[in-house]
Order: sequence, then C-alpha cells, then structure tokens
Amino acid sequence: MDLNSASLKQALPVGFTGAALDRADRERNDPEALAAALGDWRARLLRLNGLDPELDDEGRLVWGSLADLPDGSQPLYLGYIGGKPHFVPLRMGERHGAVRSPALFAMLGLMPHDQAGLYACARSLVDWHQRHGFCAACGSATELFRAGWARRCPNCAAEHFPRTDPVVIMLAEHDGRALLGRQAAWPAGRYSALAGFVEVGESIEEAVARETLEEAGIKVRDVRYIASQPWPFPSSLMIACVATADDDRITLDTHELEDAIWVTRDEVQAALAGDADVRFVAPPRYAIAWSLLTAWVGSDGCD
Amino acid sequence: MDLNSASLKQALPVGFTGAALDRADRERNDPEALAAALGDWRARLLRLNGLDPELDDEGRLVWGSLADLPDGSQPLYLGYIGGKPHFVPLRMGERHGAVRSPALFAMLGLMPHDQAGLYACARSLVDWHQRHGFCAACGSATELFRAGWARRCPNCAAEHFPRTDPVVIMLAEHDGRALLGRQAAWPAGRYSALAGFVEVGESIEEAVARETLEEAGIKVRDVRYIASQPWPFPSSLMIACVATADDDRITLDTHELEDAIWVTRDEVQAALAGDADVRFVAPPRYAIAWSLLTAWVGSDGCD
Ligand SMILES: [Zn+2]
Ligand SMILES: [Zn+2]
Repeated sequence: MDLNSASLKQALPVGFTGAALDRADRERNDPEALAAALGDWRARLLRLNGLDPELDDEGRLVWGSLADLPDGSQPLYLGYIGGKPHFVPLRMGERHGAVRSPALFAMLGLMPHDQAGLYACARSLVDWHQRHGFCAACGSATELFRAGWARRCPNCAAEHFPRTDPVVIMLAEHDGRALLGRQAAWPAGRYSALAGFVEVGESIEEAVARETLEEAGIKVRDVRYIASQPWPFPSSLMIACVATADDDRITLDTHELEDAIWVTRDEVQAALAGDADVRFVAPPRYAIAWSLLTAWVGSDGCD
Repeated sequence: MDLNSASLKQALPVGFTGAALDRADRERNDPEALAAALGDWRARLLRLNGLDPELDDEGRLVWGSLADLPDGSQPLYLGYIGGKPHFVPLRMGERHGAVRSPALFAMLGLMPHDQAGLYACARSLVDWHQRHGFCAACGSATELFRAGWARRCPNCAAEHFPRTDPVVIMLAEHDGRALLGRQAAWPAGRYSALAGFVEVGESIEEAVARETLEEAGIKVRDVRYIASQPWPFPSSLMIACVATADDDRITLDTHELEDAIWVTRDEVQAALAGDADVRFVAPPRYAIAWSLLTAWVGSDGCD
C-alpha cells in the first residue's frame, strides 16, 4: 500500500467531513444515559428553519437549550460535542424532503467544514424520520426508538434504520484528460464528475464501470478510490474514484446528461481557480467533485 | 496515485463480484423494451427455493423459462446475460428476510464468483420487495415499477428504491500486527475484521475510525481503501479498509464483541491456508474479510 497516496487523501479537503461529534452509540440503547443527557442543563438543541440551518456571522450553527423544544416535537440525540449532549428537534408531519431553499446553497458555501458535517448529520436524520413514519413491512405508523436513530413498528415489530445510499462519482481518465458531464438542470456552464447510485449486487468498482458506460458510453478499468463524503440531500454516501479509459469516443445518454467533455489538467486547475476564460464552471467546494478534481490536478496522471 | 496498488486491488479476488450482467438500466423505464424482453423466447427465469439458490453440479445457478413463473408471482428484470434477458420471480407476502438456511453458506462456498454475484443481486432485490410492500411515507400498499427496480405509492406518489447499506470493514494496524474481533454467535474459533454500518453524516474514513474506537477502544488514522463487495444478507455494500493505530491497548465493547486480538502476518497467512495450529479460524473466501486479510498479508506493512 502506498503511504504517500494515503497521506495525500488525508490532507485533501472534503466537504461535510470533520465534525467533532462523539455519536455516543452505546447511550442510544441505554434509557438511563439518555435520560441523563436530556436532563443535563448544558444540553443543546439545534435551531433549524424547516430543514435549513440557522447560522451566526461566522457561518456556525446556532444552538438553543432543550427548553426551546417546540410543542409536538421530539429530540433526536446527536451525541456529544465538546462534552455536552446535543439534540435536534423532529416534528413529524412536516414534509420538506424535496425542497431545497435557494438560500441553502449560499449558506453551505459559508459554513466551516466541521459545521457542515454536523448539519449534514442532523438534516439527513430529521428528513429520514419525516419521510418514514410508516412501516414498509406492514403499513402501520411507527415509533421513534434508539434515541432517534431508528423507528420501530408496534404492529409487526420490524425495526427501520436511517438510509445511507452509496453513490459513486468518478473521473474517467484518458491520455491525460478527464471526463466531465453536465445535467440540463445545473447552473449555466457547470460541469462535474459523472455519478450514480450503487445498486444491489454490485461493488463500487462495478458501479463506476456501469455508470460511466451507461451515461457516456466509455468503458473503464483500474478503478482507484480517492475519498468519500456524506451528502445530505437527502442522505447519500458519495464515493469518489478515478478510472482508466482506453478510448475517448463519447456516446451520450441524453436522458442523464446534456453534454460530456474531456478536459485537461490545465483547464481543471483554471476552473477550480474561478478563471472565467475556461469553457466550464467547476463544482462548489463543499461537493466532493471539487475534492476529486483537486486530487486529480495534483496527481501525476499515471494512467 | 499508485498504480501498483491499484493493480493489486484489481487482481484481488472478492466474493460476489464479477457477474457478467448488463443491467440494461434504460430498458427499465421503457415499456416497449421491457415487453420485448418478456416476449423473448430465450428469456430465462431464476429458480429459487425461497431466497436460496438452486445449483447445478458445478455450483452454477439454475434457470428455467418465463413459462415457469408461478401463479401470483411477478418477474423482476435483472438485465442481459450472454445477450439473453434474465428475470427473477417475486412472490409478495413471503417473508424470508431474517432466515438463512443452514445449507446456504455451504452453497456459497461452491459457487463461482460470477454466479455468486448474480445471486447476490437477485436475492437482495427479491428480499427488499418482500420487506417493503408498503409506503414508508403514508402506509399505503405500493406497486412494483421500473421493471422491478422500484416501488411506487398509488396514494402519495412517493417512489421507493432498493436499499444498499454501506458497511465499513477494517483492519487496524499496529507494529506489524492487525486487529481482529470475534462475535459470540460466530462459529467456534472464527475471528474476522471489525465492521459496522456507515451512518448518515459521516464519511467512510470517519465510520472506520468511529467503529474501531467503539468496538475495541482503538484510535486509528490514515484510513486506506482496499476493496468493496455487495453482501446480500440483506443488501450491504461492504467497504474494506486498513488504518493505522498508534496504540494497541484494547478496550472491548462486550455488547458487540466477545474478544479482540492482535495477529501477525504469519498467523493470518497460516489461518488463510487452513492451518489447524493457528489460534483462530479465518473467514470464508466469499466474505470480503478474506480478501482484506489476503491483501494485508501480501502488503509490505508501511504503517
Ligand atoms: Zn410493521
Ligand atoms: Zn405513500
């Protein structure tokens, strides 16, 4: 194994990672520990507007006390931050899932990494509860348990856990260039790495090859893992990879992509620097596509 | 990036990978293409006993024709194998999920890789449908759509997709030794890599560090990705990593593990070879823990 490569990855900035959260997994099943956390006068409660964060002047999350818990809300136990128990309010019946406020992405650009990571955890958890109030096995209304980290069916006893959907996001590499794509709904000029959900019965490497072939008609081999990130819209695990293509002839799946182009390291570097003369706009820093492109520009291209 | 390391990973045998399946993603949304696949006289239908496979003398899956589809069953569209459409029968109302037949793990040991990969896909898909017949958003009974790759709610229009739950499985490395653990329910003598589900709001690297600390009290850094595998019990994505520990003092979480030990490369090599004199029994070849241990034994241990 290559320690230099490992060190590179450790140093690579990746959005939504680095939250200083002790998830206190064991306390979730321990009614006494949970009661103590709820009774702790130092306990903090996250302030949310729907699913959006409230931020202070430094882009940090705003917390109140448990006394602020609105009527009809339940506290979800995040764990310890700085030795203090932290909670998130859940109000069932609200349905924000598909809505992303226009202000949200501007706020994400302002948040320090560790704060964005905490927010990702809180948002994904609340959103999952709000969209999963019923038992998928029998249709009955379910109840919160494990301190907010699961729901249980009083009818059939099925237990349901928050979803984390793995998504591969990858650069195919050919002759010193990388493959980027563009979806029609994206902001003008934006191009990014191709991506898609990992399906049942396939590995990360197989998903990278399948998605690159489906979306752009490009066959790849030698998939290399680069980095990962939680993505809270609603709750993906983004898995960033680079792979080698032997051919550069693109066959576009126009249902998925509006365009796909091969770009050089110089072009990517300029786009990451915000150069207006480049033919595409880079993804935002909090997206792992930004980290993936940054890692690719800094690598020696031994494909 | 380190090509040698990438090549090593490509060559590493990983169970449940390598299925020669074209998932024909675009046809899932195309009623005409799906009708053509269902009308193809060469179409094949997997034979299952509950969720267990039927195998021929070479450990290969047994397929029949669509005419064998039992009354009350629906065909799920796997995609193309060797140019022919392949399907899996789904009968809702059967509940096998938690049951693993004693014969199953013996059969897994007999199946060639590509066959196990196909089986993993079919099993996870059928099992997901059988445990998700109702809408988690509103409780109504849902209907199959996307050729068997989703369910839709006729009441609230929510769409539900098969779950793929990412799990990290890792070796902490210290002073040339690796950390293995043992769960009480495992076969006598069996030790394997520690593992746990990736939660919302955390990266692969953060999940590796959290699980190793929770289960064994060992802090790790410099997480390196090794390989991945689909695991169809019921539908995990196993993500195998190695990480560096600065300390070897174990604090066991006895709710999770019965024991944890540090093992040398010589011990692991002997256990993988089936040597009865070693103090532990290695995991089976189809588990990614086997691949992870094999990769670790073959690496130079630059921790
Ligand atoms: Zn139920
Ligand atoms: Zn519904």
